Amino acid sequence: MSAEHPMAPDWQVERWFNAPEPLGISTLRGRVVVLEAFQILCPGCVSHGLPQARRIRDTFPPESVAVIGLHSVFEHHAAMTPVALEAFLHEYRIDFPVAVDRAGPAGDPIPQTMRAYALQGTPTLCLIDARGHLRHRHFGQANDLAIGAQIAWLMAEADAPGA
Amino acid sequence: MSAEHPMAPDWQVERWFNAPEPLGISTLRGRVVVLEAFQILCPGCVSHGLPQARRIRDTFPPESVAVIGLHSVFEHHAAMTPVALEAFLHEYRIDFPVAVDRAGPAGDPIPQTMRAYALQGTPTLCLIDARGHLRHRHFGQANDLAIGAQIAWLMAEADAPGA
Amino acid sequence: MSAEHPMAPDWQVERWFNAPEPLGISTLRGRVVVLEAFQILCPGCVSHGLPQARRIRDTFPPESVAVIGLHSVFEHHAAMTPVALEAFLHEYRIDFPVAVDRAGPAGDPIPQTMRAYALQGTPTLCLIDARGHLRHRHFGQANDLAIGAQIAWLMAEADAPGA
Amino acid sequence: MSAEHPMAPDWQVERWFNAPEPLGISTLRGRVVVLEAFQILCPGCVSHGLPQARRIRDTFPPESVAVIGLHSVFEHHAAMTPVALEAFLHEYRIDFPVAVDRAGPAGDPIPQTMRAYALQGTPTLCLIDARGHLRHRHFGQANDLAIGAQIAWLMAEADAPGA
Repeated sequence: MSAEHPMAPDWQVERWFNAPEPLGISTLRGRVVVLEAFQILCPGCVSHGLPQARRIRDTFPPESVAVIGLHSVFEHHAAMTPVALEAFLHEYRIDFPVAVDRAGPAGDPIPQTMRAYALQGTPTLCLIDARGHLRHRHFGQANDLAIGAQIAWLMAEADAPGA
Repeated sequence: MSAEHPMAPDWQVERWFNAPEPLGISTLRGRVVVLEAFQILCPGCVSHGLPQARRIRDTFPPESVAVIGLHSVFEHHAAMTPVALEAFLHEYRIDFPVAVDRAGPAGDPIPQTMRAYALQGTPTLCLIDARGHLRHRHFGQANDLAIGAQIAWLMAEADAPGA
Repeated sequence: MSAEHPMAPDWQVERWFNAPEPLGISTLRGRVVVLEAFQILCPGCVSHGLPQARRIRDTFPPESVAVIGLHSVFEHHAAMTPVALEAFLHEYRIDFPVAVDRAGPAGDPIPQTMRAYALQGTPTLCLIDARGHLRHRHFGQANDLAIGAQIAWLMAEADAPGA
Repeated sequence: MSAEHPMAPDWQVERWFNAPEPLGISTLRGRVVVLEAFQILCPGCVSHGLPQARRIRDTFPPESVAVIGLHSVFEHHAAMTPVALEAFLHEYRIDFPVAVDRAGPAGDPIPQTMRAYALQGTPTLCLIDARGHLRHRHFGQANDLAIGAQIAWLMAEADAPGA
């Protein structure tokens, strides 16, 4: 971890699900943050990305690792509304916090957080370290061994003396 | 096959996808019909029912076996609109005909075809023989060996002398 | 089914497991026979062929369909002995009858039944009809829908008037 | 890592496969060692343990993490000979080093390394840190995220100043 890692951009959120109050990079400082960008009608998100996010949540202690979903709709906007997301979260039993990425300016199909993070598509798993730097972005399928190791290294950094 | 099997009720359809013109029990007479009732936000439909329907379509000759999807929304109606279905069919590359089950009378969340077939939920795979009788309904996960055998027997009946 | 289908060759067997007495094409007449040729150190047999044979056994009634394993060792002969097979059957909980294919003449690595059936390798699933004709041979992975249908058609033939 | 972790017992090996010369705890000092205890006729080893060991080998750099198989036969000894193991490694394309655990004294079915490590059965994945301490033993199925994290933490320890 060093100065060369950029700070993770703030999240631009229209609405939260499964969160009593809004969350953000600053409120989660001190924890490693796993940000899973997804869309409800994205096959790879449903079969791979979201199940992996849930496994991460079940494997690591919540006081050290926060798992956050980000619904970044960049296509089929009329189909993937917050109402549809709410039904999806219910049916798929997703109970970690999920943010609805705020729509971009008129004419731009890409929502604001997705653009700020320069995501290529969904699913993308982002790892943010305990000091708020954006450290990794994995677009598509990432393997659990590698993701487990990256989370562990960020946890070790956070615990290191002088961190 | 005998008089004891009821005729399959007609389908009440709001709109068709992937079909140049409306289909029905009578227009498909002479073919075994596999009717896959599903909802786009139903996890078992996405992981099991629809992939099985696609495998059936890829395994049996289309002149003998017709595979038809039926989008029977009985919950989260505001989330599972025809617009959302259209995006889903595109993203999941589903190219067999899909009918939107017509909404029931005011106050009834169950759509009309689902009620006429007395379906318990989704996914349900229905098998209709070449003379239009409803022969099997499988709610939940049905195994491919058993479904393959049932389709084959209905095909054999259709080909039998005197059928 | 017609005269054009060859009779299934008799099985040349060194030893039976899970069978109180030797079985054969003639003793199983009247039943569809599923013959699963395998080797215990063949990855595709362990991951696909044998689980499929077990699913067939669990799906169809035993009075109509007999599932038989055939251990046809054509490589690594010193490794895949009957002693090793016995341990394998125990560990993998395989409880349908399994025949040890009889070794070929000196210098021929191919066992006798494998040669008589002209098998290309393992796993191979053979389907023999109720009158003893060899009807299908599937080398490698065969899909359950297609296998279920083929078994069903052979069952329907066996039950047809005049069969 | 501290004095409280016991040193990993030396391996008692009859024969090595895929290793130009014998390996041991001391020769691998400086690397995290993943020791996968297995038997070739153990279903859980074939379906889970060995594929996981291969994934670990493919995920972590070999100069930091060594993956070693240990064939610890404690049952069906006549079936799981070194000859059978050699055929197995060939068929399953396992190319990391594999040690044959040395048989115990007369009357003891448990081989020597398995007893020294007090393993409960197979598969068991052992993690040994870069200074030779036995840190984790996972009997049965261990999830990739957790194993990836444990390997990463042992790698971080090895790299820490003063380690």
